[in-house]
Amino acid sequence: MLTVALSTDARRMVLDVTGQIEAAVAASRVRDGIALVFCPHTTAAVVVNEMDGRLEQDLLAWAAKAVPEGAGWRHDTVEANAHAHLQGISMNQSATLPVVGGRLALGRWQHVLFVELDGPRQRELWVQVVGR
Amino acid sequence: MLTVALSTDARRMVLDVTGQIEAAVAASRVRDGIALVFCPHTTAAVVVNEMDGRLEQDLLAWAAKAVPEGAGWRHDTVEANAHAHLQGISMNQSATLPVVGGRLALGRWQHVLFVELDGPRQRELWVQVVGR
Amino acid sequence: MLTVALSTDARRMVLDVTGQIEAAVAASRVRDGIALVFCPHTTAAVVVNEMDGRLEQDLLAWAAKAVPEGAGWRHDTVEANAHAHLQGISMNQSATLPVVGGRLALGRWQHVLFVELDGPRQRELWVQVVGR
Repeated sequence: MLTVALSTDARRMVLDVTGQIEAAVAASRVRDGIALVFCPHTTAAVVVNEMDGRLEQDLLAWAAKAVPEGAGWRHDTVEANAHAHLQGISMNQSATLPVVGGRLALGRWQHVLFVELDGPRQRELWVQVVGR
Repeated sequence: MLTVALSTDARRMVLDVTGQIEAAVAASRVRDGIALVFCPHTTAAVVVNEMDGRLEQDLLAWAAKAVPEGAGWRHDTVEANAHAHLQGISMNQSATLPVVGGRLALGRWQHVLFVELDGPRQRELWVQVVGR
Repeated sequence: MLTVALSTDARRMVLDVTGQIEAAVAASRVRDGIALVFCPHTTAAVVVNEMDGRLEQDLLAWAAKAVPEGAGWRHDTVEANAHAHLQGISMNQSATLPVVGGRLALGRWQHVLFVELDGPRQRELWVQVVGR
């Protein structure tokens, strides 16, 4: 398994990590199989979608409205980030992607996006590739 | 990897693709493993749930309410479909399914559903099966 | 493929199934690969997140608000649980997890959680592990 180290510098932000995931897939030497992009964190998400700065702002705005911060969540009495946990759950927290010919196979408009919901923090993605 | 070609004939609709996925799994000749059903599109989704026409209308109605079209999304200045991107993210955009005895293993009420959120379009699903 | 049997004793509840999934991964004898935790049900979900009793109450409260019960859903004319189907879709209905050194690899705060949305019922999770 390979680790991709990430550093986020804002409370909420989206990072395009496609290049790092492609490098991890190449390093695995698997030619034909699937790559699991696993987020080991509970207040972040992994989304596969278009990389357009405006869409990423929309994604964060939608999450903030769908799960508002400080809306009386019980977990906030432990740590005031229940909204970040629930926002992550409402997206996806990992992605499983095809590997073909030794390369990540993505659709024309798809990028692999890391969504920080409770930063800034040092983060990681774990990439596990299986196949031949 | 196998490709399933789909054609949607409405702006928003749900297609039951279980049969096509089962055929792709059989063609892979994998007896025991997992099948990734990957959607290479950014304004569609793959959901595994009951196939009942009324439930599918409910799913589209819920998505339209959870992420309303034209609600001031920034991405709409590029292409007026931000809601379709975000609706897809709020569901799932791929599914990973068990393969047992050379066949897709699904629960009694489960079907594999392709959810078109910005059609009509020519679409594809990519099916990658790993195992023995 | 291994089956984990679960029994829920409330209409809506969250069960921490991390120990059962770890046992299934150990039984698979796979040292390096990925584990699919597949929910064969259409009104339940699998979520990977922190196990804190309060956060789990928040998750159920958020789901009930995001997809209200009895809100005129068409599927309710068949069986009055459309909200449970849609709540499951808005979370995740399966999880794909890394297996390293023969053990499930999870982040520090991550647990595997089964979310019952239409209980009480006898439930199952299917665990399929691929790799070497």
